[in-house]
Amino acid sequence: MNKAVVLLSGGLDSATALALAVRHGFDCHALSVSYGQRHRAELEAATRVAAVLGASQHRVIVLSLPFFGGSALTDKSIQVPTDGAGIGIPNTYVPARNTIFLSLALAWAEVLGASAIFIGANAVDYSGYPDCRPEYLQAFEAMANLATRAAVEGHPIRIHAPLVSMTKAQIIHAGTEAGVDFGLTVSCYQADDDGSACGVCDACRIRRAGFVAAGIDDPTRYLQRV
Amino acid sequence: MNKAVVLLSGGLDSATALALAVRHGFDCHALSVSYGQRHRAELEAATRVAAVLGASQHRVIVLSLPFFGGSALTDKSIQVPTDGAGIGIPNTYVPARNTIFLSLALAWAEVLGASAIFIGANAVDYSGYPDCRPEYLQAFEAMANLATRAAVEGHPIRIHAPLVSMTKAQIIHAGTEAGVDFGLTVSCYQADDDGSACGVCDACRIRRAGFVAAGIDDPTRYLQRV
Repeated sequence: MNKAVVLLSGGLDSATALALAVRHGFDCHALSVSYGQRHRAELEAATRVAAVLGASQHRVIVLSLPFFGGSALTDKSIQVPTDGAGIGIPNTYVPARNTIFLSLALAWAEVLGASAIFIGANAVDYSGYPDCRPEYLQAFEAMANLATRAAVEGHPIRIHAPLVSMTKAQIIHAGTEAGVDFGLTVSCYQADDDGSACGVCDACRIRRAGFVAAGIDDPTRYLQRV
Repeated sequence: MNKAVVLLSGGLDSATALALAVRHGFDCHALSVSYGQRHRAELEAATRVAAVLGASQHRVIVLSLPFFGGSALTDKSIQVPTDGAGIGIPNTYVPARNTIFLSLALAWAEVLGASAIFIGANAVDYSGYPDCRPEYLQAFEAMANLATRAAVEGHPIRIHAPLVSMTKAQIIHAGTEAGVDFGLTVSCYQADDDGSACGVCDACRIRRAGFVAAGIDDPTRYLQRV
């Protein structure tokens, strides 16, 4: 059984990526990063999701991205925008976040002898983060296959981003078919301690619109509605 | 004045890379990673080197690579080899280490508005680590320039590895000319608390041979000599 490291944030997309990896027959090792995000609800969601979807294990590595700052998600003095998508890349972009997360996944993949890394990146219904685009993910894979002892010894790694070209509605359909309980997931950038969503940040807006477009009931508890 | 993030381990190579970056007129921000290495002497050396060579600041981020293990440098149950270079990549290789370190440097570079990252990687007198080779570094730069908001907004990053094609003797000459006091640096994989070097690990062997080839007195305190 091929092993895969699955980056798991606790949100809708990465839960779906994990479910698809399990469906594809991978022995899945879920990795979350406690990076100083604004709330704990996301990591608690990741733990629930990993258990329910049948990951072999779920581990949480600690890395303080507030050390660098530069994002509303890692610097509490910067406000999360709540008035809908503006122009350009929003301040919720976290510098080099996916590069750091994929690098950590690469390290673990090499130690485990995994042949794949799954990431729930999406470049359709998203906030324009550059490190979610297919060309970025391809470049990461090319770099990774020059980086490790495993790769130079003939065991390359494949970066799987099965959601990258899907709409949010398609992701919700795919996740539902693969058995994801989206009620366990938290997408909100500023969820409260029990996982209730603000309803007005970009992540909430994209999520809600996705359920509407999919014609599937949205199980999320929103504190506000736009 | 252009800003650069300089990865600084406390060893001979990264000290030279910092000295060269300063000589090239960069405003240097030194970054070390407390990754669970076998000893603290290396990080203490980095602090001294950064101060003496004129870095604007030196910061140490904490990331536990023993979380993953898989290397003699991050798993104390694995012995550091002391009987000279064997065949293939030695067990002191740390999975994805340079990829992780460069990713952290990339995050900080974006927040600082830096245009360059310096790394003391060397692919001549080295242990065969794949993530020290020019083709790897080029692939990292290509990936990095698709990864960040800064890059997509027209501010690309350049990965500088000024030592990559030098022999150890050439590095020692370049560092000496650029004002590095190698007595402040620690290369040994298993230095003791006061920074004395074992003298028999690969890092010590490569270092000593470099000073001999350079015809420069080696200021290192070796506990054993081969």
